[in-house]
Amino acid sequence: MTNARYDVLGIGNAIVDVIARAEDDFLVRQGMQKGAMTLIDEARARQIYDAMGPAIEASGGSAANTIHGVASFGGRTSFVGKVRDDTLGQAFTHDIRAAGVAFDTPPAFDGPSTACCYVLVTPDGQRTMNTYLGAAQDLHPKDIDADKIAGASITYLEGYLWDPKNAKEAFLKAAKIAHDANRTVALTLSDAFCVGRYRAEFLDLVRSKTVDLLFANEAELHSLYETSDFDTAAAALRKDAKLAVVTRSEKGCIVVTPEKTTAVPAAPIERLVDTTGAGDLFAAGFLFGVARGHDHVTSARLGAVAAAEIIQHIGARPERSLKSLAQENGLPV
Amino acid sequence: MTNARYDVLGIGNAIVDVIARAEDDFLVRQGMQKGAMTLIDEARARQIYDAMGPAIEASGGSAANTIHGVASFGGRTSFVGKVRDDTLGQAFTHDIRAAGVAFDTPPAFDGPSTACCYVLVTPDGQRTMNTYLGAAQDLHPKDIDADKIAGASITYLEGYLWDPKNAKEAFLKAAKIAHDANRTVALTLSDAFCVGRYRAEFLDLVRSKTVDLLFANEAELHSLYETSDFDTAAAALRKDAKLAVVTRSEKGCIVVTPEKTTAVPAAPIERLVDTTGAGDLFAAGFLFGVARGHDHVTSARLGAVAAAEIIQHIGARPERSLKSLAQENGLPV
Repeated sequence: MTNARYDVLGIGNAIVDVIARAEDDFLVRQGMQKGAMTLIDEARARQIYDAMGPAIEASGGSAANTIHGVASFGGRTSFVGKVRDDTLGQAFTHDIRAAGVAFDTPPAFDGPSTACCYVLVTPDGQRTMNTYLGAAQDLHPKDIDADKIAGASITYLEGYLWDPKNAKEAFLKAAKIAHDANRTVALTLSDAFCVGRYRAEFLDLVRSKTVDLLFANEAELHSLYETSDFDTAAAALRKDAKLAVVTRSEKGCIVVTPEKTTAVPAAPIERLVDTTGAGDLFAAGFLFGVARGHDHVTSARLGAVAAAEIIQHIGARPERSLKSLAQENGLPV
Repeated sequence: MTNARYDVLGIGNAIVDVIARAEDDFLVRQGMQKGAMTLIDEARARQIYDAMGPAIEASGGSAANTIHGVASFGGRTSFVGKVRDDTLGQAFTHDIRAAGVAFDTPPAFDGPSTACCYVLVTPDGQRTMNTYLGAAQDLHPKDIDADKIAGASITYLEGYLWDPKNAKEAFLKAAKIAHDANRTVALTLSDAFCVGRYRAEFLDLVRSKTVDLLFANEAELHSLYETSDFDTAAAALRKDAKLAVVTRSEKGCIVVTPEKTTAVPAAPIERLVDTTGAGDLFAAGFLFGVARGHDHVTSARLGAVAAAEIIQHIGARPERSLKSLAQENGLPV
C-alpha cells in the first residue's frame, strides 16, 4: 500500500439543498414523513416549492457534506458525483472546490437538472427532506477513476446511491478498486426508509466485508435488523461488522467492533437550530480521525464536535473551520 | 385619500445574494472597499466567485429585504423589481411571494441574467458587497403600475435605483403618482459611495420634498453633506428633510424632524454574526410603524428589533416572525 493521495474520497448524490422553515402542520398538510428523506419527481418538486416558505439555497448531499467536513478538518479529499451544467450545478461545483475538495466528475450536458433537496426545518430543529434526484441519476461506473480510488485511504459511500439506477454499479466498482489497493471502504446507511428499500443488499455488503466501516443512526440500525430494541440491534451489528459507529443524537454514539462496544458522549451545544447534516458531519470527523491514524474514541470525539457545529445553524456545511474547532477542544488534527 | 391596499410598496433592484465568509486579507487581495457596495461587471463577477469560499444563495436586494421585513411584521406589501426568467430569478420570485408580498413585475425573457450580489462577511460581522446588476438594469417606467402605487400608504425607494439606466425614471414616475394620491414617499440613501455618485440629485429629492421620509446611516449622512462631523450633518438634515431617520449601528438611531431630534437606542443582541440587511430591516420596522399610524419612537423601536434579528444570523431576510418578535418586546403590531 503506497502513501495515500487523499485521506477520504466520497461518492454520493450531488445535491443542492433548498432550505425553509416550516411548522409541523405544513408537513401534515403535505403528507410528509417527518425526519425522513423522501424521493420525489419533478412535478412534486414544483408543488412543494410553490407551497413552501422563503428559502435559502446551499450545497448539500450526504457524502458531499461529509467530504466538505473532512476538508474543513484539514483532510485531503476528493468527491465523485453528478450535476448538470446548470446554475445549481455550477454552485455545487464552486462550493465543493472552494472548500479545497478535488471534484472532477464531468457534469451532464443534457437530461434532468441538478438534484435538489427541499428541506423543511421545523421549530424543534428536525429536518424533513424531499429529494428530486435529477442529474444525480446519471452517475455511472465510467465516472469512477480507478487511480483516484486507489489513492484514497478511505473511500466513503452513501446508501442513498442505491436509489439512482446506475450508481450502485459505480459504488461496487469503487469498493473493489479500493480493496484491491488495500484501502478502507466506508458506508453510511443514510436513512431508515432507504434501509427499508435495500435492507438485504446493505446487510450483504456488511456481512461480506465489502464494507469495512459502517455508519448508522439508531433508526437506521433498527430498520437494518428489523427490531425496535437497541441492544438486540447493536449485538447483531457486532457480529456482522468489522467496525461500525451508531450515532444517537444527544446521547452521543457507540463504536462497535467484534471485540467491544464503546460509548462516546455528544459534544455540548448552546442552541439546536437545524439538524440537517448532523450525521454527515459526525462521519466527517470520524473518517478524518481514522484516516489520520487516531484511535476510535478520538475519532468519535472529532465527529461529535463537527456534528455540534452543524446543528447550531441552518444548512449542512460548516460555517467555521473544523480544524480550529477541534484544536479548541484539545483534539488532534 | 382612500384606504390603502398596501402598507408599503417597495421599488428596488431584485438581487440574489451569494454569501461567503472571508478573512480581511481576502478583501485586501481583491482590492475591495470594506463595508461598501461596489458595482461589478460580469467578468469581475466570475473572478470574484472563482476566488471566494463556499457560499449560500439567498434572496436579497435592499428594498426587497425591507419589504420582506414589513410582510414579516404582518404588513400588506408589494414589490417592484426586475429579474430574468432564470434559476435565480425564479428563486427570488418564489421567496418574496412566499413571504406574502405581491410581486408581479414581468421578468425579462432575454438579456443579462438575474442580478447577483457577492457578499463577503468578515469575522467582525461586517459585510462587503459586489453587485452585478444584470437584469435589474432593465427596470423601466412601464413596470410602474399607477393603481398599485396610488394604493400604497408608503412607496419606498432605494438610492441604488440611480445606478441602472432607466430605473431613475421609474422612481420619479412612482413618486409623482404617490404624491398625486396623497401618499408618502420614502427613500433610503443606500450606501455612502452611492451618495457620492448622485449627491446633488439626492439632495434635490429631499429639498424639493419629492421624498417625505429619508433613511440614512452615519456614513451616508456624512457623504450627503460632505462633512465628517455628525452634528453638522444632522443639523443640515433637519433643515432639509420633512422626516428622516439616521441609523448609528449599536448607538441606535436619531429621528429628525424640523421641530426636533429624538434618539432611540438599539435593541440588545447576543452575538453579531452578519450585518447584511441591518439598515434594510430597520427601515422595515420604521415603515411598518408609520404606515400603521404609530409614533416615531415606537416605529424606531420596531426598526431596532428587526435590525437586531437580522444581524444575528447569515443573510438579510428574517429567520423568524418579526410580528412575534415585536409582540415579545411589548411593541404594537
